[in-house]
Amino acid sequence: MTRADVTDPFDPRTPRTISGLDDPKAIVAEVTAEIEAFLAEKADEFTAISPDAREIGRALLDYTRGGKRIRPVLLWWGYQLAVGEDFDRERLSSGLAQAAGSLELLHAAALIHDDVIDHSDTRRGEPALHRKFESRHAAKGYQGEGDSFGVASAIVIGDICLALSEEMFERSQDSLGITAQARELRATLRRDVMVGQYLDVLAEVIPLSDERIGERAWEVLSFKSAKYSVEQPLLLGAAMGGADAEQLSEISRFGLPLGQAFQLRDDVLGIVGDPAATGKPSGDDIREGKRTVLIAETVRRLSSAQTEILADRLGVPSLTDAEVDECVDMINATGGLAAVESFIEDKRAEALAVLDEWARAAEPVADQNSGPQSEPHTRLGDGAHRRLAEFADALSYRTS
Amino acid sequence: MTRADVTDPFDPRTPRTISGLDDPKAIVAEVTAEIEAFLAEKADEFTAISPDAREIGRALLDYTRGGKRIRPVLLWWGYQLAVGEDFDRERLSSGLAQAAGSLELLHAAALIHDDVIDHSDTRRGEPALHRKFESRHAAKGYQGEGDSFGVASAIVIGDICLALSEEMFERSQDSLGITAQARELRATLRRDVMVGQYLDVLAEVIPLSDERIGERAWEVLSFKSAKYSVEQPLLLGAAMGGADAEQLSEISRFGLPLGQAFQLRDDVLGIVGDPAATGKPSGDDIREGKRTVLIAETVRRLSSAQTEILADRLGVPSLTDAEVDECVDMINATGGLAAVESFIEDKRAEALAVLDEWARAAEPVADQNSGPQSEPHTRLGDGAHRRLAEFADALSYRTS
Repeated sequence: MTRADVTDPFDPRTPRTISGLDDPKAIVAEVTAEIEAFLAEKADEFTAISPDAREIGRALLDYTRGGKRIRPVLLWWGYQLAVGEDFDRERLSSGLAQAAGSLELLHAAALIHDDVIDHSDTRRGEPALHRKFESRHAAKGYQGEGDSFGVASAIVIGDICLALSEEMFERSQDSLGITAQARELRATLRRDVMVGQYLDVLAEVIPLSDERIGERAWEVLSFKSAKYSVEQPLLLGAAMGGADAEQLSEISRFGLPLGQAFQLRDDVLGIVGDPAATGKPSGDDIREGKRTVLIAETVRRLSSAQTEILADRLGVPSLTDAEVDECVDMINATGGLAAVESFIEDKRAEALAVLDEWARAAEPVADQNSGPQSEPHTRLGDGAHRRLAEFADALSYRTS
Repeated sequence: MTRADVTDPFDPRTPRTISGLDDPKAIVAEVTAEIEAFLAEKADEFTAISPDAREIGRALLDYTRGGKRIRPVLLWWGYQLAVGEDFDRERLSSGLAQAAGSLELLHAAALIHDDVIDHSDTRRGEPALHRKFESRHAAKGYQGEGDSFGVASAIVIGDICLALSEEMFERSQDSLGITAQARELRATLRRDVMVGQYLDVLAEVIPLSDERIGERAWEVLSFKSAKYSVEQPLLLGAAMGGADAEQLSEISRFGLPLGQAFQLRDDVLGIVGDPAATGKPSGDDIREGKRTVLIAETVRRLSSAQTEILADRLGVPSLTDAEVDECVDMINATGGLAAVESFIEDKRAEALAVLDEWARAAEPVADQNSGPQSEPHTRLGDGAHRRLAEFADALSYRTS
């Protein structure tokens, strides 16, 4: 196959250089508008079933307002990487925003249930949904136990949010078309995050001394977060744009390590993050007993006597701030924290190296010197390269 | 339009008489085989993510074994009502069994979460899923609180079951084809049952003296159960078979009242059912504090002093058997129970009257005497009529 064949301009699957990717702020604005319009429509449907159901719509509108919308932006860019930046916006951008928005609803559903499971009181600096409904129970003078009502409401509203995520995704397919590959990827994304969540729940009850602690922490990190938050949204967007298997595999090589850096940063912020920025109390992961890679790396470096001290404290909600601080010091002093910082740097570098390959593929000189075998399908112009590299840095070094 | 036009044999939408509907036992066998094959495949995927995830697949296989499969049978018959009994089984029956099975997985997901919400210990005579995982926690010597682990596991496994239900439905569409109407109906079914569940949770914390008690009980009965268990599975099957709006509306006229009779019977069984048959302790709805139509009908007939006694007991898990029995006597003595028995009879009769119309439409004499306006689209031969009437009786007068 000659170079000329590969760049046939009449073949829609021919690699084209993507000169720029849409501004995340613009994507977020469009996705947010679609989410709010969709939820408003659903809220009316709920209220038509019963006036008592009005609160569901309100709660979901409130809850979905605070998100950073990382997954929607990545889905959008994945689509652009597959179709080029100049897609038919008039016809397609609303559908794309719906597909992207459906990931935000899936994420909201996961967080609502997550907070019940973790007994978390706060989310994004606000009371968690089950706590909001517990307060509502008190304010309305309802009967029975307020905390049971809060938990029950959050379980059901999380289920509704999950169902609405499906519905919004289905709607997007009316304009974008349904491909078997996109449906399969969507199913995998949804299933992986849930299985990752189960593994996380299980990890918290298994002794720190268990030999699979490190392996298990990487499984949770990859399936509950890295794939679901970064790799799979990019893949899903690309698949919806018609990417072939080779391009999808290239995107995984970028998305998975970046997702791992993203979640490793989360592990760090869960221990030494600034509560004002994260919206979570300081040392929250200690009191919740999360078995993160950071904890696994710390345990590897502890004596068994020190491990016992840490084991006694992890997952005890009533720890004093001083007890939490002692755990944090331990994580720091053993070098666990430094090890994770260095993993973040490695994973980020791995992701950026893939971007560099994609940028080189767009350079005319590179075209002459390399054979088609080594040519990436994804080709980035300067603007697109900068956009993705900045985003990778932001995910790896974020403070919230 | 003349009669000859209506019965044009070359028009696939022409009403044809359905002489028989498939045997429920055969449907159940085929649906069960599809569910088990699907879950076995998914269990392997979970285990590939992590050996720790093996238990999810096992739990779901166990859990879905006990169901009565009412919704799958109704979906199947709805399909037959639309396409006739002689559909291309070779090509379509596996897809139809998948669509039907997806309703069973949705139902399993709802029950898993329901039992967490209601703090129910048993389901189908076995420990509820959260109790099974609580026992597993003890058996394995896991750390932390066993009940929290049980609840967390059940929330996540319920979510996974919900996701698998979507996936199984999507798969069915590969052979049956995707119609916008079927997708819309599926979304409505999924959403209605969840909103009904929220209304049920809310109803339990609102004082018995609230003026909307009766209205609210009918909303819960219709959306959480009647539509979801009977009307919507029939409609979904019919829509997948290409039923038009008129046929769907006929099917609603049969399905909704029958679904209401079905759930009113459930209300009765929740109070005076035989625990050996229902798999639930006697008087379970009293201890759970369910605000059923039966309770609303009782309250309507009570003095405010008597209402206070009932209000004090409803939803108190620690009631003695004697206290439960006193409540049951009250429900009986006021005539609440008799009122609900008479509602069941009315709703069942309403459903059977629709079947009679469908049967008359298949009689040659009726063809001559009535104009096309009054002709139902659904026409039942003797066998099909008998099948549906027997099923209607079974749902209305079941003991388990």
